[in-house]
Amino acid sequence: MSDLKLTYFDFHGGRGEPARLALSMGGVPFVDDRIPIAEWPERKAGTPFGAVPTLQVDGKTLTQSNAINRYVAKLTGLYPSDFWQAALCDEAMDAVEDVVNQIGSTMFLPDDEKKSKREALTEGMFPLYLKQLSKNLEENGGRYFADDRLTIADLKVAMLTRQLTSGILEHIPTDLVERVAPDLLGHFERVMKDPSIKAYYAKHGVEV
Amino acid sequence: MSDLKLTYFDFHGGRGEPARLALSMGGVPFVDDRIPIAEWPERKAGTPFGAVPTLQVDGKTLTQSNAINRYVAKLTGLYPSDFWQAALCDEAMDAVEDVVNQIGSTMFLPDDEKKSKREALTEGMFPLYLKQLSKNLEENGGRYFADDRLTIADLKVAMLTRQLTSGILEHIPTDLVERVAPDLLGHFERVMKDPSIKAYYAKHGVEV
Repeated sequence: MSDLKLTYFDFHGGRGEPARLALSMGGVPFVDDRIPIAEWPERKAGTPFGAVPTLQVDGKTLTQSNAINRYVAKLTGLYPSDFWQAALCDEAMDAVEDVVNQIGSTMFLPDDEKKSKREALTEGMFPLYLKQLSKNLEENGGRYFADDRLTIADLKVAMLTRQLTSGILEHIPTDLVERVAPDLLGHFERVMKDPSIKAYYAKHGVEV
Repeated sequence: MSDLKLTYFDFHGGRGEPARLALSMGGVPFVDDRIPIAEWPERKAGTPFGAVPTLQVDGKTLTQSNAINRYVAKLTGLYPSDFWQAALCDEAMDAVEDVVNQIGSTMFLPDDEKKSKREALTEGMFPLYLKQLSKNLEENGGRYFADDRLTIADLKVAMLTRQLTSGILEHIPTDLVERVAPDLLGHFERVMKDPSIKAYYAKHGVEV
């Protein structure tokens, strides 16, 4: 087994969380390197693309969150081997990344501009994406995004659902998912009921 | 063998070109559905996420360019089976996608704003990414991005190199790659010398 160190911010969510969950679910030991936000400016310069998560594997650094997700999902049995099911898994992960990128692009804007951009996303791209994700879920059996079982794609989508419904994003209504893609709420509950995910958050003292 | 239809714009490049190249290189028959730019507004609404490429596989539609790339690369032997080599392949593809997203975000801006945003990218993100891609190339043997052979990652990177050096992007200097990551030019030449890629472009009457 390789030596693994996953580096990401010190909160429960975001681009690094699916890999943390996957490694924990698979019982794969890893160093859980959590960067306090205050240390980020200093740590940023030491990352290959100025971004986290990164995954060190026997001292070599892998970047790009979905590349990391896919790699750890293969190690932990959370990635389909069938080509088409793997493609559905990839599609959902990259669609979420599109949304996450748009959220990210508004994160450090002045408040007026943040408000207008997030309102535009709430009217346009977000419902389009959430509805299509919901449709994909339905077309693939209604329970999970690929392989008719929990895969890394479900962890990725669930983290987005949690972010959008949690109220931590100003100017994005917390009932957006419920209004446009209620099936994603059922999906989120399903993922969070997984015993190993429940155990993970219980260990970290997080209510889900 | 599945029935495949790849839908993308009618030009030689961009997000759809690596999959076209991979399918052609692998001798996998597919319907090469090319949308004339004038027809895009009408066709856009019929796509799941308002975007191309899409790949129809036996009538089911797959979206997200790197999900499509990975799927066709598996069909055509252009994707590593080793987990780590596959991760390197994924990392390069997603890094290119980050750059492509930034280029895309400037595409329809008023000229003043396009100029200032592209100049900022030329000073900041682009050199960071191009240098890191060049470093990844070197760390993986200097010839290809993964598996010490031509994979889908090389096709993805080569299309970016061609886009950045071709002069089609206003306000992005065509010598940027040469200045900051000259190894990517050597890599581009290496990819374009592949006999099946040469044959593909010769068939389409394109000089490369």
